[in-house]
This record gives sequence, structure tokens and C-alpha cells, in this order.
Amino acid sequence: MSKERPLILVTNDDGINAPGIRALIDVMSGIGDICVVAPDSPQSGMGHAITLNDAIYCTRIKSDSSPYEEYSCSGTPVDCVKIAVNEILKRKPDLCVSGINHGSNSSINVIYSGTMSAAVEAGTLGIPAIGFSLMDFSLEADFNPGKKHIKKIALEVLNKGLPEGVVLNVNIPKLGVNEIRGVKICRQANAHWLGVFDKRTNPLGRDYYWMAGELVNLDNNPDTDEWALKEGYISVVPVQYDLTAHNAIPVLKEWNL
Amino acid sequence: MSKERPLILVTNDDGINAPGIRALIDVMSGIGDICVVAPDSPQSGMGHAITLNDAIYCTRIKSDSSPYEEYSCSGTPVDCVKIAVNEILKRKPDLCVSGINHGSNSSINVIYSGTMSAAVEAGTLGIPAIGFSLMDFSLEADFNPGKKHIKKIALEVLNKGLPEGVVLNVNIPKLGVNEIRGVKICRQANAHWLGVFDKRTNPLGRDYYWMAGELVNLDNNPDTDEWALKEGYISVVPVQYDLTAHNAIPVLKEWNL
Repeated sequence: MSKERPLILVTNDDGINAPGIRALIDVMSGIGDICVVAPDSPQSGMGHAITLNDAIYCTRIKSDSSPYEEYSCSGTPVDCVKIAVNEILKRKPDLCVSGINHGSNSSINVIYSGTMSAAVEAGTLGIPAIGFSLMDFSLEADFNPGKKHIKKIALEVLNKGLPEGVVLNVNIPKLGVNEIRGVKICRQANAHWLGVFDKRTNPLGRDYYWMAGELVNLDNNPDTDEWALKEGYISVVPVQYDLTAHNAIPVLKEWNL
Repeated sequence: MSKERPLILVTNDDGINAPGIRALIDVMSGIGDICVVAPDSPQSGMGHAITLNDAIYCTRIKSDSSPYEEYSCSGTPVDCVKIAVNEILKRKPDLCVSGINHGSNSSINVIYSGTMSAAVEAGTLGIPAIGFSLMDFSLEADFNPGKKHIKKIALEVLNKGLPEGVVLNVNIPKLGVNEIRGVKICRQANAHWLGVFDKRTNPLGRDYYWMAGELVNLDNNPDTDEWALKEGYISVVPVQYDLTAHNAIPVLKEWNL
């Protein structure tokens, strides 16, 4: 890390007014110069969506006397990162942090998560990036117990850098400050969502669905994020955006295609 | 493959009226019993987005005399797969095919692609799945030259199954039937999108952006999908949804967290 204060881009998927991003801004303000570019409304479950067919608004929302710049964006979390890096920031940030998400992004949730997709997008642009999530959906969630760990992880990433092609997925259990047992480096547990839909009929007689669903964890191995969280640890999973299943290549080369 | 005709779920991200899905329906009708559940409007670039905060409509659109059922869904490509498997189909399909996408989903495009995310979602549910894309955005694109290869790949997946946790990303170059040189098993090329935004001002004086962008390929190795496509081959990349960067775990375990 250079002697200059690092430049940190802060975003999320719960929207710029969510308490989780305020907690993250609070921690990051103690580390570097920050710029906030976040969605103007909740964008949970947006995955790696980008806005191709609509105009994107991105408006500065704080007064010039604020110690940092803050922008509210009509697009997705990934749009926010793209606009921040290409249109707003004067130089490439030293770190991008996303969150703190209201709710878990462990195991297979990583692929649905706007929070994590924002971090992944930053990663593709060569920016060290971390997504933070707290296992508590409530608007009144207490983000304080995880703060010292968030600061430590962010500082370590700034100091050491991340392996190429890797961003971090950090999940924090819903526990008091003295109950968190520490930090575990994990792999993503093998889990999937069992689709459950609530079918209803609207006043015009047309059927529609609400998505519900239930996470089925098939994998309670102690090297997984689900295990670590259940045991009271903060889980850190290195996440890659090379989706190639390299092990499957020799298998497929035997096929008659 | 059992002696019964296989059950094949067909979806896409360009919407149920796109010519690409009609070409895919045409090929799959020659292989098995099909059911189509696709978005009612274009959903390009939706990645793995799911609809959490809106009602989802899913309406049967063909007459009962049609040889297959077809549903138009107001949700994302991933929503379509979830609703098809959980609400529409009487049994788990033997195969899910997505596409044929109008435009490439090679290299890093895989993470933005609704077409590929639909296939990935099916994979998480234990369904062998393939996303097909043609390197031609045009509505008048000619999908015929790739058809015999699409059929062969689908039959091979039905016969052999796919390795666990793997779906296929198949991209087809824009070439005539005699110009396609064959099929190559590849890895995802290391590329990223350089964000480019077209900034404009609306009639009320408010600035907005259109996303443009440019794919930068940093990786011309002959084992990549980008190389294969450039050389006139159909590229097949095995894609996984375990995003863990397993190689990075020992590195991070050395950190002081």
C-alpha cells in the first residue's frame, strides 16, 4: 500500500439508503478516501445483471462539504461499478467493497447476489474487491459486531493484494461481538435453492406467482462456508470469475463431437 | 438414455418470440418431447437475476392441439427455469437447453448472459444443461449452419450425462455450413469489458448514460473459446457454479485474519 490514503469504492445491492452500506462507509472512512456509488433502490437477487435497454441515471446526492462523494444510480450493482470506474472516479480505486448485505451470500447464494456480482465486476476490471454480508435480513440488523473484522480484512487486502482473478466473499454470522469465534477461509458449500412458488390469482382472474424457495445444503463438510457460519465463524471464500470447469475438459475431449 | 423420448426444457434470454429459440425448438423436437418456458420480452444481460419483489406471470400461449406446451413468462431466464421445474413440468426434465442466443456468450460474457444463467440454474437443480449462442446479433441471423452440431451435442449429453456441477457453454461462429471447421473443447478466455458510456442530457436537463462497452481479450491461447471461434470452430466450454478459487485457499490461510 502506498503512503497515500487508498481510494475505496463502496457499493451494495440493498440500495444507497440501506443501513448496511452506512456501516460499511463508517468502517472504510477510517481506512481511506471513499466514493459511494450505489443503487437508488433495492436490487437484491439481481446477480450479474447489467442495464442494456434503458437509460441509467447516476446523480450526486451529498453536498460539496461532505468528506466523500456519494452517487445514487438507477442501475444494477454491476452498473454502479462500471459507471463509478469509467465515469466518476478520476483513477482506478485501490479497493472496491460491496455491502454490508442484509442477509447471507454464502454457498450458492453467491451466483444470485447483486452484492457479490458488484465485487466480481470490480475484480474483472483489476480492482481488489470484497463483498460483505451479515446473516440478518432485518433493517434493524446490528452491523457493529463484525466491524473490526471487516476493517482487518480490508486492510489485509490493501496490504497484500489478492491472487489474480480472485475476489472475496465474506459472510458474518448474526452474533454478538464476543460470540464471533474468528475468521475461517472456506470453500463454497454445495447447496441449491429448492424453488417454491406461492401461486395466487389477481382481481382480474389471472394467475401469478411469488418466488419463495428454500436453501438445501447438501454439504456439511468443515471446510465449507455454511459449516463455519453455523459454528460462529466469519467465512471468507475466494471467488473466481473464470467459470471453466477445468477438470471436465479431458472428459469432454473423449466425446464424439 | 431410456427408451422413452427424453423430456427437454427449452428457454432463452432473447424472449419467446426471438428467431433463435424457434431454431432451438426445431432441433429439439427431433430429439424428444419438449416444453418451452421463456421470457415474454428480451432479457439480454440479465445474468443470474431472479424476481423477488414482483409478481411473476407465466401463461400458456399455444393451443392444446400443439405438439408441445409453450409458456410466456414475465420473469428473468432464471425465473423461467425455476417455474418450469417446480410448477409446470410433471417430472424433472432430462435436459435443459437455452438459446440459441443472438450474439456471443464466449469468454467473460458467460457471467452477464441470461442464456447461460438459465442453463446454470438448471445445473444447480441436477438437470444436464447447455446454453447455445450464435455470434450474430441480427434478428435475421441464419441459425441453420449450426443445427447439426447442436443436435449432436445435445444427444451426446443425453447419452453420456455431464460431470457433476458442470453445464456447457456452446458458441457458434457466424459461418456457412461448410465453413464451420468442427467442435473444440475449450476454456473461457481471460477477457473483460471495458466500460464505455454514452452520456446524454434529457429534455429536462438531467444527465443520463447508455451503456456501450468493448470486449478486451487478453488471452489468445489456442485452448480458449475466443481462439476456437476466430479459427472457425464451435467452442464448447464446461462451466461450473462452484465459484470457489480453490487454488487461493492456501494463500489466504497464510494471512493474519
